Amino acid sequence: MPEQNKANPTKFITVFCGASPGRDPEYVEMAKELGREMLKRNYGLVYGGGSYGLMGAIAQTIHEGGGKVIGVIPAALKKIERPEIGETNNDLVYGEERVVPDMHTRKAMMNKLCDAFITLPGGYGTMEELLEITTWSQLSIHAKPVMLFNMKGYFEHLLKFIEHSIEEKFVVEWSAGVIVAGSTAVEVLDKLEVYQPPKSRFAL
Amino acid sequence: MPEQNKANPTKFITVFCGASPGRDPEYVEMAKELGREMLKRNYGLVYGGGSYGLMGAIAQTIHEGGGKVIGVIPAALKKIERPEIGETNNDLVYGEERVVPDMHTRKAMMNKLCDAFITLPGGYGTMEELLEITTWSQLSIHAKPVMLFNMKGYFEHLLKFIEHSIEEKFVVEWSAGVIVAGSTAVEVLDKLEVYQPPKSRFAL
Ligand SMILES: [Mg+2]
Repeated sequence: MPEQNKANPTKFITVFCGASPGRDPEYVEMAKELGREMLKRNYGLVYGGGSYGLMGAIAQTIHEGGGKVIGVIPAALKKIERPEIGETNNDLVYGEERVVPDMHTRKAMMNKLCDAFITLPGGYGTMEELLEITTWSQLSIHAKPVMLFNMKGYFEHLLKFIEHSIEEKFVVEWSAGVIVAGSTAVEVLDKLEVYQPPKSRFAL
Repeated sequence: MPEQNKANPTKFITVFCGASPGRDPEYVEMAKELGREMLKRNYGLVYGGGSYGLMGAIAQTIHEGGGKVIGVIPAALKKIERPEIGETNNDLVYGEERVVPDMHTRKAMMNKLCDAFITLPGGYGTMEELLEITTWSQLSIHAKPVMLFNMKGYFEHLLKFIEHSIEEKFVVEWSAGVIVAGSTAVEVLDKLEVYQPPKSRFAL
């Protein structure tokens, strides 16, 4: 695929994931694999900015492969120091960086810029982002694919929790279809391309 | 405890929970039990408004027991119809209702008004609220207790998922202490009263 096409992606994907690389190097490998697969399909990346962990792995892969990367980062988070994981922020930026005033503006922009969401392994913040766009889909605020890249079964307990929520009738049954999981980069993107949001969502 | 004291609660607790009652009537019973225990301790309730499910159960219990209830509800959500669970909104209001322009303002107000958070069983929206305040604690935006009322083991899979996230190094180990769970109303409130936030949080 020629370079000039990659400057005009056919889709933008917002990826939520950790600023940590995880315990097993395979997580970073799989994040890079998703980056390569997105390059093949000419998809651009929207993400939370930063150059560490899975975030850095996918952003670097797409940027260095000639793809389009937009990092959306709140001013305050640019300054965070994380001595307990041996990292301090530096100025390494992949692609275009948009510094926004706060977390809320970041989320609104990440939602506005993309055609679909993919969540990779991450911590509380990543889970919160996943559940927020899931809630927004349920409330018909958007109808975009909400994909889970279930690397090494990372999300199994979360998926069981959602099943249990449905069994116990705290989540309505049709809502189960909002989140679609895949265990490889190809599976996630193939399912993303045919994603249909549940039909009977709440109408605000 | 005299009525006049209840108009001036010693603490306000923001409760996140479902607008559904759940499959087993015990969920509603346990929500009422929490309400009664909050009345005993003269705690006021801040919640998402509405009169259904666990939300309605706890709000009604506290309101009818002479306690203070503040419901914070976005204008758009007041209009939601939920035919699939046989409900439409009506004007039943327990205590004071504050109508806010949007979800973001609701969250900011629910955070500002309270001294602690308790999450009861609920769906995607409830989980998102729990994870948001957990993230905010991790980022030192607040240091309030983040409690889980683990009724009937509802949150077991979620707690296992968090353990797995720590094992896999996507959540730093000290963060495990942000969320504290209890399986009865008394246990949750007793633990809330001695809650200490983790010491080594991220400094923004
Ligand atoms: Mg949120």
